Amino acid sequence: MTEGYKLVSEQQLWAFVSEVFVRMGHSNDDAYLATDVLLEADLRGIDSHGVARLSGYVRLWEAGRINPTPKVRLVRDNLAAGTVDGDRGLGLIVAAKAMDIAIKKATATGVGMISIKNSNHFGIAAYHAMKAVPHHMIGMSMTNASPLVAPTRSKEKLLGTNPHCWVFPARRFEPLVFDMASSAAANGKLEIAERKGTAIPEGWAVNAQGQASTDPSVLRKGGMLLPLGSDSDHGSHKGYGLGAIADLLSGVLSGANFGPWVPPFVSFLQPPANPVGEGIGHFVGAMKIDAFRELDEYYEAIDTWIDRFKSSEPINPNEPVLVHGEPEKVHYHERKTKGIPLNDKVYDDMVALGHKLRIDFNT
Amino acid sequence: MTEGYKLVSEQQLWAFVSEVFVRMGHSNDDAYLATDVLLEADLRGIDSHGVARLSGYVRLWEAGRINPTPKVRLVRDNLAAGTVDGDRGLGLIVAAKAMDIAIKKATATGVGMISIKNSNHFGIAAYHAMKAVPHHMIGMSMTNASPLVAPTRSKEKLLGTNPHCWVFPARRFEPLVFDMASSAAANGKLEIAERKGTAIPEGWAVNAQGQASTDPSVLRKGGMLLPLGSDSDHGSHKGYGLGAIADLLSGVLSGANFGPWVPPFVSFLQPPANPVGEGIGHFVGAMKIDAFRELDEYYEAIDTWIDRFKSSEPINPNEPVLVHGEPEKVHYHERKTKGIPLNDKVYDDMVALGHKLRIDFNT
Repeated sequence: MTEGYKLVSEQQLWAFVSEVFVRMGHSNDDAYLATDVLLEADLRGIDSHGVARLSGYVRLWEAGRINPTPKVRLVRDNLAAGTVDGDRGLGLIVAAKAMDIAIKKATATGVGMISIKNSNHFGIAAYHAMKAVPHHMIGMSMTNASPLVAPTRSKEKLLGTNPHCWVFPARRFEPLVFDMASSAAANGKLEIAERKGTAIPEGWAVNAQGQASTDPSVLRKGGMLLPLGSDSDHGSHKGYGLGAIADLLSGVLSGANFGPWVPPFVSFLQPPANPVGEGIGHFVGAMKIDAFRELDEYYEAIDTWIDRFKSSEPINPNEPVLVHGEPEKVHYHERKTKGIPLNDKVYDDMVALGHKLRIDFNT
Repeated sequence: MTEGYKLVSEQQLWAFVSEVFVRMGHSNDDAYLATDVLLEADLRGIDSHGVARLSGYVRLWEAGRINPTPKVRLVRDNLAAGTVDGDRGLGLIVAAKAMDIAIKKATATGVGMISIKNSNHFGIAAYHAMKAVPHHMIGMSMTNASPLVAPTRSKEKLLGTNPHCWVFPARRFEPLVFDMASSAAANGKLEIAERKGTAIPEGWAVNAQGQASTDPSVLRKGGMLLPLGSDSDHGSHKGYGLGAIADLLSGVLSGANFGPWVPPFVSFLQPPANPVGEGIGHFVGAMKIDAFRELDEYYEAIDTWIDRFKSSEPINPNEPVLVHGEPEKVHYHERKTKGIPLNDKVYDDMVALGHKLRIDFNT
């Protein structure tokens, strides 16, 4: 079964999405920012984290679980570190503003690290970390998320797909953008297989008893995603560790919820009755390159690094060796000019949302 | 074929190892420090990174590739960041001293991040990161290493097994210690299989043509280790990414060598003729917890986290769910009291080293 899609231009999508955020009660500035984060995901080809999320945000807002006028502020403030209270705002907005604070601290001291509590879904991690690039800084971002992943040996879902993201500026090349979920496969890959009616590879997920499964619907039947590494023989304790590190920095350090207590992003699931913190948590950071090394030397070195890896001899001559961020940049340039392909389900979702809020989804 | 081993007490090993470092020309203080790092590895059961490395260090020193009297100093110094020149010293010593600088900066600003160039092998990453614990700080450490791992799609070894290490203090429990190579399996696991004459699982390594291999000797036949994730279907680009992040922070940011230019740790292999930097690189950091959150709140939260994960329902009732650092701590307590088991090859290596340097390896 082939999936249908419709091409929508960035401009048309922008007008619609920003108006939705305004109707939710966001200021013009915050609506602009949230739209920028969502569309960056669609432009980069991370379809699971773009406008596909929009109607879910609206339902969470209708349920009173998103504050459209958050006062994002530092509740703990040190020279190079601090904690931000997101005031129940959308993570798209909260994390981006926290990253601005991290960059300001890094300008003064060389490093800025900010933990964030009381937030919601923050979109693609890369958006926030990439803000460091024009400042000649290395950026990083992490988040926790509602539990889908079982630790090694466990048959309970205790961790989200908690990503680690690092971004390194370059000069002759595009920045290196590492944005990696700590699970073997992202949830979205299972959804695609489910729509196509194909089996998933072993090593992505297990059923409710913790046994290997190739059923793409296994998550909806009580199953769990596996950490990166898939099984003990192949280092799943490392994927479990990466998910845990993001959870500890985002949740335990900030005062947000953590582990199985992280509230779900969907309105039809209620947050746990016994929260251990406030909202979900993120962690963002910036490091000023010339606090470590002369800028010119750094840029020459990283360009050499990228050049060497890109020109590495491939196993299959038709599949050149890639560096991180490269496939997303190809999508970006193509979609900027040709438009963003929305699959039929997401397209229909936009149309329905337009009807509900009386906004013209004019394509 | 079962491997033989001999039990040696920590005290006896300490006396021998520290005397070896002194004979190499290290000061008493530096010899003490280097011994502490090596024995911590053996006590924690990381046998590949303990005294098994000692004779190799001596050979590198004989070849003039280790400076036993390094002046470890900041060559770039900002409030929360800086770069250390290791002056060709042993990484065991250089990284530990750089971590002291990171902790000092974190005491003042909340965060201290130090990149390190012109160094050598730094032992277990966890030793350096764990130094943060008594200061109520989160510690981290990374290093690059000579190339053994092929990026996704490549048939060239361009990255070391570059570990990421994070350490989080706890109160009711031992600290969480995440210390993870970015490859699917560590080189030491292949060596064990080779000595036992058993095949290795698919997904650990490939042969020189980039094809799957279960031959434990494949590395010595031109083969390569695979990144964590093993193949594209299971996220090997993420393991490739983790190795690259450690390489960029340790090498490109500091001015050390990086990628395929990282010099080998063994005296019979020459460093690349066209270095792109100085020595090998590390990256260490410290974050003061109360710069983010009240200490008591943090400790209560992390103890809750650990308690919840340890009590998670296991798939197999005989295999309880573990948290990171737990298996190493079991080794630690056992070996502290019963002694450290040195396998026959390592034991004979110590005896031979004792003869050469005229130090009594009296066990």
